[in-house]
Amino acid sequence: MSIIIEANDSSLKSWINIPDQSDFPIQNIPFGILRHPEFGAVAATRIGDTVIDLCSLARNHYLKDTGADPEVFHRPVLNDFISLGQPVWRAVRNRLSWLFRHDNPALRDNLLLIREAMFDVRDVEMLMPVKVGDYTDFYSSLEHATNVGIMFRDAVNPLLPNWRHIPVGYHGRSSSIVVSGNSIHRPKGQTRGDKDESPVFGPSRQVDFELEMAFITGKQTKLGDSVSVIDAEDHIFGLVLFNDLSARDIQRWEYVPLGPFLAKNFGSVISPWVVTLDALEPFRTVGPVQDPHPLPYLQFEGKKSYDINLEVALIPDGAEEITISRSNFRYMYWNMAQQLAHQTVNGCNINVGDLYGSGTISGPLPESYGSMLELAWKGTKPLRMTDGTERVFINDNDTIILRGFAIKDGIRIGFGEAVTKILPAK
Amino acid sequence: MSIIIEANDSSLKSWINIPDQSDFPIQNIPFGILRHPEFGAVAATRIGDTVIDLCSLARNHYLKDTGADPEVFHRPVLNDFISLGQPVWRAVRNRLSWLFRHDNPALRDNLLLIREAMFDVRDVEMLMPVKVGDYTDFYSSLEHATNVGIMFRDAVNPLLPNWRHIPVGYHGRSSSIVVSGNSIHRPKGQTRGDKDESPVFGPSRQVDFELEMAFITGKQTKLGDSVSVIDAEDHIFGLVLFNDLSARDIQRWEYVPLGPFLAKNFGSVISPWVVTLDALEPFRTVGPVQDPHPLPYLQFEGKKSYDINLEVALIPDGAEEITISRSNFRYMYWNMAQQLAHQTVNGCNINVGDLYGSGTISGPLPESYGSMLELAWKGTKPLRMTDGTERVFINDNDTIILRGFAIKDGIRIGFGEAVTKILPAK
Repeated sequence: MSIIIEANDSSLKSWINIPDQSDFPIQNIPFGILRHPEFGAVAATRIGDTVIDLCSLARNHYLKDTGADPEVFHRPVLNDFISLGQPVWRAVRNRLSWLFRHDNPALRDNLLLIREAMFDVRDVEMLMPVKVGDYTDFYSSLEHATNVGIMFRDAVNPLLPNWRHIPVGYHGRSSSIVVSGNSIHRPKGQTRGDKDESPVFGPSRQVDFELEMAFITGKQTKLGDSVSVIDAEDHIFGLVLFNDLSARDIQRWEYVPLGPFLAKNFGSVISPWVVTLDALEPFRTVGPVQDPHPLPYLQFEGKKSYDINLEVALIPDGAEEITISRSNFRYMYWNMAQQLAHQTVNGCNINVGDLYGSGTISGPLPESYGSMLELAWKGTKPLRMTDGTERVFINDNDTIILRGFAIKDGIRIGFGEAVTKILPAK
Repeated sequence: MSIIIEANDSSLKSWINIPDQSDFPIQNIPFGILRHPEFGAVAATRIGDTVIDLCSLARNHYLKDTGADPEVFHRPVLNDFISLGQPVWRAVRNRLSWLFRHDNPALRDNLLLIREAMFDVRDVEMLMPVKVGDYTDFYSSLEHATNVGIMFRDAVNPLLPNWRHIPVGYHGRSSSIVVSGNSIHRPKGQTRGDKDESPVFGPSRQVDFELEMAFITGKQTKLGDSVSVIDAEDHIFGLVLFNDLSARDIQRWEYVPLGPFLAKNFGSVISPWVVTLDALEPFRTVGPVQDPHPLPYLQFEGKKSYDINLEVALIPDGAEEITISRSNFRYMYWNMAQQLAHQTVNGCNINVGDLYGSGTISGPLPESYGSMLELAWKGTKPLRMTDGTERVFINDNDTIILRGFAIKDGIRIGFGEAVTKILPAK
């Protein structure tokens, strides 16, 4: 399975300064969209705390012969670049790795271009990296599904009969996915308490985060075609952190029989840097044992899970940050290849830029649960904040931060942050 | 409520020949996308059996001062034209009405342009009229929800507690929506019979149609904003017929707890001509009484339903067509304004080109049911075809046709057809 990608060489150093504990060493080279002060939206990468405008690099011939025309980097989203295909992403990432290695003067000594094309991350705004055509959210963490089942259905048989056979998923709303840094208003909607005769209308009282990752597809298929588990990863461009904000009280009243709707479409937040599957290659690992054995179209060989540490922090308004969850992407019962094979097994077509959320990623320990619902166990175990207040769900003006990073052999490949503040209802 | 739109004048005649019973008199003037033999995809309208290339009309200055630049009609989809806003759609539709009225020689006598810009509908291919960003499917027919409830849950209390309070809906897959004329392969997937221990994988044995209409939004909103019931119709560009193909056996196994997924995303079919809400203005009617009274954000005044006759026909391979259902859009319990107000009440943003399916439109009588599931009542009442065969669901190589038209004061405004053939599983 293992492939050699030059840019992943762990011995590489860069001539760009990289702070300790940075998510963005020269081995990462993620892709995003930068609001350039002069050119508008351009494709960018990041090394350490430096954001690099790829359009300027390309126009100055530093990316020639990679298969990417300079103008493909001068677009509001990465979709057209991604559509060029895996050989082009790889060539561009390898070229960037070569350009920024410590012993290469080609770009390092072009001070004029460095001044024009490189920015401090604190000075720039990052935009949505892709135009999301369709967005699917899976429900692939055994621990999360089990916790929800215990709380709301049956403590003895918490899993529904289909769960161990199907990577259960549903379609979500693309329009309300925003990039890190955007605040979201608390949603209003219908709720009905267990003892109420009729529903009432008002702001949700149970706004929650969901700690997820999401993958972005990089290759189109035709309606009627399927993607096999074996081929699935070749259809994946990269991953982001994904906060699937949820209003639990709205969800409980609306979701039977057709699933979550307004409980989930008032805003979802992704991190701005798409970390390529190539960059995550060294962090492959085995996933949980699947019992019973899935149907043949979901069977796989090799390591299809990824060892990525995940954290959730909460900042009460005006107080200090506190980490409230530590989980790992490898806890997912169903892996990405299985999810994509399932999504397409009926002939459903995929497009470049589709987003596939993992579902809440809860681990086996209470401190690894991926939602407030589970961490505070349905309101029974309030979380104490740094300012002495307690939380069972998210309060107005709370800020939620998702973080993710993989570490191996001294190399840390990270995702940065997906940050959002919950504002009062409009 | 009533507004005056010049193009709706029922006394108008056209210099284009209009066959009896045509869905496309000069009072309709729908919008679609034509594959032009020379120019590629262009916006078009239709009068009688004549398809008219709007790009050529605009380039020859026949649409000047409407607010639409000729190049906006030279796009693969209508989204950019629709984005110009309601005053522009109205101005273009009124101008087309004026250009084609029987006593106007301005275009009628320009034989060179007529030869270049007008086509017989039998000679052309129509493409997807819009790029669908997000697609929502509602579940707004009381009769359909009741029938499904009786068959699968509880014959005494067939409706779930939320149904009369919420226009229940869920997000669907945009990528697999195709235009009339496309065939769809029978989907494969997991199913599990009531007596089976484990699921099996194979072609669905219960492929069904769903008779729906869908509206297309014409005005964007920002995340966090809501559209009121009063303003909702100003955000609607027009309507199409919508066949929400469904695999009942896949749905039954997968849909708990997050709703339909692979049962619905293998292909959905729309009619090619978007009939504007303006053209449907004369057909407003009162809808069903809503009891209990909905919450204030769903309350409305005036006529928000539309009297549109709907039909479903089935053509077995090599046999004659048979009409298997006759329903009406006015049977919908929740109207479009309520659906859009509900969709956005939590701040969910909408974009131009979003598609909102009504849900299966079943009427009160068995012959007005909008799906095979209901018509054949869960397989217990097979439908006899013209060739003597029977159907309880759709067979391979069956063709399904949806039709819709409104009639009043001798004017018939129709939608044409949404046609699809179900091919064997791949």
